[in-house]
Amino acid sequence: VRISELSEATGVPVHTLKYYLREGLLMPGRATSRTRAEYTEEHLDRVRLVRALVEQGGVAIIGVRAILAALDAPPPSQHDLYGVAACAMPSTAPDHPVDDDALALVDQLGWHVARDAPALRSLSAAVRAAEAAGVGLSPGLLRQYAEAMHAVADVDLSVAERAGSAQEALRTVVIGTVMVDPVLVALRRVAQEAVSAERVAGAAPAPT
Amino acid sequence: VRISELSEATGVPVHTLKYYLREGLLMPGRATSRTRAEYTEEHLDRVRLVRALVEQGGVAIIGVRAILAALDAPPPSQHDLYGVAACAMPSTAPDHPVDDDALALVDQLGWHVARDAPALRSLSAAVRAAEAAGVGLSPGLLRQYAEAMHAVADVDLSVAERAGSAQEALRTVVIGTVMVDPVLVALRRVAQEAVSAERVAGAAPAPT
Repeated sequence: VRISELSEATGVPVHTLKYYLREGLLMPGRATSRTRAEYTEEHLDRVRLVRALVEQGGVAIIGVRAILAALDAPPPSQHDLYGVAACAMPSTAPDHPVDDDALALVDQLGWHVARDAPALRSLSAAVRAAEAAGVGLSPGLLRQYAEAMHAVADVDLSVAERAGSAQEALRTVVIGTVMVDPVLVALRRVAQEAVSAERVAGAAPAPT
Repeated sequence: VRISELSEATGVPVHTLKYYLREGLLMPGRATSRTRAEYTEEHLDRVRLVRALVEQGGVAIIGVRAILAALDAPPPSQHDLYGVAACAMPSTAPDHPVDDDALALVDQLGWHVARDAPALRSLSAAVRAAEAAGVGLSPGLLRQYAEAMHAVADVDLSVAERAGSAQEALRTVVIGTVMVDPVLVALRRVAQEAVSAERVAGAAPAPT
């Protein structure tokens, strides 16, 4: 299809598609004349992915580029997927040092995690920011949250393991992680209302 | 203290403090002359809170204003806290309709949640966005994520219940929810690496 049809099919304006092309987020179409190019199903998928990452996922262009580069070069083993995914995913605090508290947490839980993992930097930065806002996170509290997120990660891995190929698994890991974050954040708020209702009901005097 | 000292103590530039004053995010100081005002410990706390919400929490000014308004007018009961908090917290999709799938999920889980809760709108929007990026979330998968986030909400509520007053509980709920989101997101990534390592170890042939 032509670029105008690609635009119609995806709902992304032509000037935005040209921007994606310039930024290397969309591979060039097959040139059919000096000013025209043909785009395929692959382009359609790519545009939908980039749009979802940028508009709904809130991922920065540099993060999108890293994610796409990772998707185009799948790593050898399943375990490596998370290393690649972790590096591809937009880090909230690439330069933040890893705090001793974060290391103590993973050691206490018996988690095998690289001691300079980007996620540990993000964790350290997020804990510090919460503390700056007056939200103290004791080691016990962090441990409880970590255990709940371990259950989330277990679900994540089961989904990735069902993927047919390393390429598809990586796609599942990277896109799934970024796009499911807002789902989890929303579920947390829904669950807060539910737990609050449960506790009020539990504390109410029994009907006579 | 004077505004320059407030700036020094918080690390927030004077022109940003003046912006906070103009936007109503910081209450005016006690005027000591036509051009001078005195600020107290209360101002210091408020500046730190606003800064953490805006800079680390990524909350928009309109969201900060709603959070502060809620903090200044505490609601009567513990259960109401989550309603107020839910409304104060920046919604990612205030106008998105609540999908039938989201309602089916809470019904299936037996959760008591208002059927027009802002969190259900955010959930519906986030699930749709994930699907647009090729991340399908089956009812079974959503349920597993919801159960994990129920564990998170249980921890959240326990923290709020330890608060000394309704005012402090609301502060804990609102600020805790917003500021702990990035901690959970980072913990999810750390846990993914840990679970990935666990599964590789579990799948490896036993040493002889």
